[in-house]
Amino acid sequence: MGELALIARVKEMLGEPGGRVLTGPGDDAAVVRADGVSVTSIDTVVDGVHFELATHSPADVGHKALATALSDIAAMGAEPGEAYVSLALPDGFGEEAATQLVEAMRALALRTGTTIAGGDVVSGPVLYVSVSVTGWAPGPEQLVYRSGARDGDLVGVTGELGGSGAGLLVLRGAPGSPALVERHRRPQPRLAEGRALAAAGASAMIDVSDGVGTDARHLADSSGVQIEIELAKLPLADGVSDPAFAATAGDDYELLFTALPERRAAIEAAVPVTWLGGVRAGAGAVFRDAAGRVVDLEGFEHVR
Amino acid sequence: MGELALIARVKEMLGEPGGRVLTGPGDDAAVVRADGVSVTSIDTVVDGVHFELATHSPADVGHKALATALSDIAAMGAEPGEAYVSLALPDGFGEEAATQLVEAMRALALRTGTTIAGGDVVSGPVLYVSVSVTGWAPGPEQLVYRSGARDGDLVGVTGELGGSGAGLLVLRGAPGSPALVERHRRPQPRLAEGRALAAAGASAMIDVSDGVGTDARHLADSSGVQIEIELAKLPLADGVSDPAFAATAGDDYELLFTALPERRAAIEAAVPVTWLGGVRAGAGAVFRDAAGRVVDLEGFEHVR
Repeated sequence: MGELALIARVKEMLGEPGGRVLTGPGDDAAVVRADGVSVTSIDTVVDGVHFELATHSPADVGHKALATALSDIAAMGAEPGEAYVSLALPDGFGEEAATQLVEAMRALALRTGTTIAGGDVVSGPVLYVSVSVTGWAPGPEQLVYRSGARDGDLVGVTGELGGSGAGLLVLRGAPGSPALVERHRRPQPRLAEGRALAAAGASAMIDVSDGVGTDARHLADSSGVQIEIELAKLPLADGVSDPAFAATAGDDYELLFTALPERRAAIEAAVPVTWLGGVRAGAGAVFRDAAGRVVDLEGFEHVR
Repeated sequence: MGELALIARVKEMLGEPGGRVLTGPGDDAAVVRADGVSVTSIDTVVDGVHFELATHSPADVGHKALATALSDIAAMGAEPGEAYVSLALPDGFGEEAATQLVEAMRALALRTGTTIAGGDVVSGPVLYVSVSVTGWAPGPEQLVYRSGARDGDLVGVTGELGGSGAGLLVLRGAPGSPALVERHRRPQPRLAEGRALAAAGASAMIDVSDGVGTDARHLADSSGVQIEIELAKLPLADGVSDPAFAATAGDDYELLFTALPERRAAIEAAVPVTWLGGVRAGAGAVFRDAAGRVVDLEGFEHVR
C-alpha cells in the first residue's frame, strides 16, 4: 500500500458520526452540536520522546495518546465529547500498524463515550500522534479548576501511584510484574471518577501526569495555597514500595483533588479515594514522613 | 535556555483569554462558552514534508500552520473561534525561533479574531506543528458543506490561483517575483469571504488546498454531481500563465463554491469571485479548453 493510499485509508478510519457530531469526516471540518461550555486540550506524543516503538505496540501508542488527552477532560470533571487526531507516520509504518493504532484509539473512544470526529494523516520522520479532545459541561460552575483549593481543604487521590513508572523500569529490564507494564502502556483516564468528584464537591483537581510531587505544586501554585502531603499515605501500586518513587515517577493519570472536610463522606460514597493530607495558607507542596519531617523529593525524577 | 525552560516559555505564549474563552491556559483544559454548533478541524505541518526550514522562517511556519487550519473553518462559512496548538521542537530550535513562530501565529489569530486558547510543547526530531481550530455558527443550516452542489448550479472561486505553487518553484530557483514567494509562505485564510458566501447562498464550498483540479472532484464526489470548469476562466495569479498549472499546483487556500444561478448577483455583491463553470448530473470534475475539448490534467501535479 503506497503512502497516499495508506493516508487515505487511515483518514477514513478516523471519524465517525455519533453523540453530538452532526457532520463527521469527509467535509472541511466536523460539525458538533454545542451548548453550555466546551473543555478542550491538545496533547502530542512522539516516538523516542514519550514512548518507544521498541517497547510499545502501535495499539499501545494509539491508546496512550487518546488516554492522556482524555485525562485532562477527566481532571476538569467534564463529560467526554469529541477527539480530533493527527498522525504523522514514518516510512514503513505500514497499514497493519496504522490500523492497530487507530483501532485501539477507537476502542478507548467507544468505552469512554468519545467520538473520534475528525483527523489528519501526514508523513513524518517518526511517529507523532496529536490528539485534541473536547469535553462538555452545562456551565463553567460544574467544572473543577486547579485554582479552587482553599486553606482547610483535604487532599485526596484516586487509584494507586507509581505503577506506570515501575512498569517503564520493567520494560527497561528491571524485575517486576506484567501488570506494571500494562499500567504503563495502557493508562486509564479517570473520566467517571472526575465527574463524580466534581458532582461531590471537589474544590480543585488535576491529573497526575508528572507525579503527585509536581502536580501537587501545580495545584498549590494555581490556588495560592500550600498543599501538605504525608508520603506514607500515598496509595502504592502493587510492586511499588517507595512512596518517594510513587510521588515522582509520573504518568499514573490518577486524579489529585482537594475538598472541604464536610465533603469527605459524599466523596467517599462516590469514588474510592485515598486521603493524603491538607491545604493550608502558604505556597508550594510539602511532603512529610510519618514523623512529620519534610522530605526532599529533589533526588527523584519523573521516569521517562 | 534549556529545553524544559523553552517548553515552559512557549507554553506561556500559547493561550490567552478572549472571545468565548472563559479559562485559558494554566488549567488542564481551556473552557469555552458554547452555543449553536462548533466546527472543528485539525491540521499538521512537518518540516521536510509541508515546508522546509531552509526556505521558510519560523514565522512563516507558524503563520502557515494556523492559516491552513483556519482555511477549513472559512470553507464551512463559520466564524473563527479558538485554536489549540501543539509544537514538537527539535534540539537547537531555540527560543528566538520558537518565539517568532508563536508570534506570527498570534498575529494571524489577532487579525482573524481567533483566540489561541491552549497548547502543548514537546521535543521531537524535526519541527512539527499541529493546529486544531474551532469555529462557530448559530446552527448547522448556516454552514456550507461539500455535499450541497446541485445540477444547474454555477461554480465560482475567490481570488487567484497558481501563485503559491509558482512561489514554491521560485524558492527552488525558478525565475519569478517575491510576491509569488509571499503567496506561498503566507497563505491567507478566506474567512470573511467564506462567511459572506455562506450568507449569500453558496450551496457547496471547499478550500483549494490540493488545487481546483482535485478539490472540484472532492466537491463533485461529495455532492453526487459533475462539475465542469472552463480552464481559460481560471483567475491566474500575476506571473502564472498556464491554467493547467493553476488548477493543479495547490496551496492557494482560495474558496471553490457552487451556487444557484439566481444567487449570482447577491454573491457578486458580497465577494469578488470568478465564475468558472457549472454543475450537471454525472460524476467527477471535467475541465475543458475554450473550444470545449476535455483537458486531461493527469500530467500536472500538486507542487510540493
